Amino acid sequence: MKDRTGERLKRLRRSLAARNIQAALITGQDNRFYLSGFKAEDLGLAESAGALLITRHEQILLTDGRYDIQARKEAPGYQVVIYKKGLARQLRGIFQRLEVSSCAYEPAYISCSRFEHLTNTMPAVQWQPLGDILSRMRLIKDRHEHRQLKKAQEAAEKVFEMVLPEIVPGRSEKEIAFMILEGLYKEAEGPSFPPIVASGPNSALPHAMPGNRKIKKAEPVIIDMGARIGGYCSDMTRTIFCDEPSPELKEIYMTVKNAQDRAQRQVRPGMTCREADGLARKIINEAGFGRYFVHSLGHGVGIAIH
Amino acid sequence: MKDRTGERLKRLRRSLAARNIQAALITGQDNRFYLSGFKAEDLGLAESAGALLITRHEQILLTDGRYDIQARKEAPGYQVVIYKKGLARQLRGIFQRLEVSSCAYEPAYISCSRFEHLTNTMPAVQWQPLGDILSRMRLIKDRHEHRQLKKAQEAAEKVFEMVLPEIVPGRSEKEIAFMILEGLYKEAEGPSFPPIVASGPNSALPHAMPGNRKIKKAEPVIIDMGARIGGYCSDMTRTIFCDEPSPELKEIYMTVKNAQDRAQRQVRPGMTCREADGLARKIINEAGFGRYFVHSLGHGVGIAIH
Repeated sequence: MKDRTGERLKRLRRSLAARNIQAALITGQDNRFYLSGFKAEDLGLAESAGALLITRHEQILLTDGRYDIQARKEAPGYQVVIYKKGLARQLRGIFQRLEVSSCAYEPAYISCSRFEHLTNTMPAVQWQPLGDILSRMRLIKDRHEHRQLKKAQEAAEKVFEMVLPEIVPGRSEKEIAFMILEGLYKEAEGPSFPPIVASGPNSALPHAMPGNRKIKKAEPVIIDMGARIGGYCSDMTRTIFCDEPSPELKEIYMTVKNAQDRAQRQVRPGMTCREADGLARKIINEAGFGRYFVHSLGHGVGIAIH
Repeated sequence: MKDRTGERLKRLRRSLAARNIQAALITGQDNRFYLSGFKAEDLGLAESAGALLITRHEQILLTDGRYDIQARKEAPGYQVVIYKKGLARQLRGIFQRLEVSSCAYEPAYISCSRFEHLTNTMPAVQWQPLGDILSRMRLIKDRHEHRQLKKAQEAAEKVFEMVLPEIVPGRSEKEIAFMILEGLYKEAEGPSFPPIVASGPNSALPHAMPGNRKIKKAEPVIIDMGARIGGYCSDMTRTIFCDEPSPELKEIYMTVKNAQDRAQRQVRPGMTCREADGLARKIINEAGFGRYFVHSLGHGVGIAIH
């Protein structure tokens, strides 16, 4: 892990040096993991599990007492600092000691109130948006990341195959969701997001919660699931029918399948995502279902699900 | 649901009117649910499932196409608007139509970059922090909320009792976590957070992920779990031993138990949380373990876990 984060830190530092910024404060959970290996998860916007401070020569993981041992274990390349009176006050001391007067921050991963608290606590520091350096780095996966993603997808497929024969009329969405969870905890570190099992009319709600509804014959069941391995997420969606669907449902299903097949066949390196999406969208539009294609063709995967 | 959100909206509108603000933009997931019943969950800071706009006479739920049906179903008192080019552009049109020129926002529940995008798209609108009106309302639960919380805790206790006999040496943390999940999906809508099962040395990591470690005789096993019912969370932590613990572990356990018992006996209406925490902290300090008491005595529960 140390070598991987070492290379990433080097690239980040080069970018900071080129812009003449002395430090970067990393508050985004996924970037925090990407640069340090620290796996703790934030509880929404309002409850952070910590932040990284990267200066020219130091890398510091700031967190609270709950994560003390975990931080030292998961981020061995970092100096771990436990804050008792919050991040801002702890940072102020460090900035004074290291004479940091300019710092990059992540506008997309810090709330307005938290950032205001930082600027109020350290009025002399110049804050600059970090920009997209880390997104650009994360976009292109290294060999280790490829391996994790492959394993995560293999685990999800294995679980799907295991659960498939159990999806029969009379079973509830929740029962199936639970079987999926069981499998994901066995075959991987767990789910990359709570699995979705949506049957019948619920299958029109792309982000439905599994409920007590029992599956009926010949209606669509949407399974949306993924596994997490080494901090990396897989994400797959499958639509199945327990019996021969109606001609209308069959037409819709085949339209989506043809669109997907075409996109997979014709997608090329160098295409924009919009162009790739267009390959599928054209088929769905031509079949007259364009206005129901509310999702896009796909999305990136990695440390983040989307 | 409609009546409940109606009363809440009335209080929010009174507070806005008193401050001479025409509208409020609600971007926090929990406040969004509290005011509308819309249950969709954001994916971190960067991927929102929607926002509410509350003006004097209208309440609008703005979301993207994925949540169209769900929004109409869960928030029947709201006008649902689907944005295709993002929240800011949609809001601009609505603000023009309704002649809104001042709007409250939630600084703790919007990222700097999202807020900057709003202010850039609508430079003429005056943005004011909403303040703590919704936190103060949510602090005091109504009868419906009490009922949900009670049910959520009862479900968690039932699952704990069911799983307890299965916690035996040789079982892995993951196996037990999975049994808890199974129970929570059966007895409730699911977990309020991923259950924690931490054995032996892992029990010193308050936010550990359940792993393949097998439980050994006479070591502590920490179970941290909760159920979600009607959108409300319970949260309970229990420490158990499969066999007689060592005198040292027993002393630590009893210290915590005595501290908890004292706090439960002596806590009184009107006390500050710090005073309540002090009741327990005193006992732990006197026993010489003060510096390991990194958590606080407790925390609120409700729509949010903490």
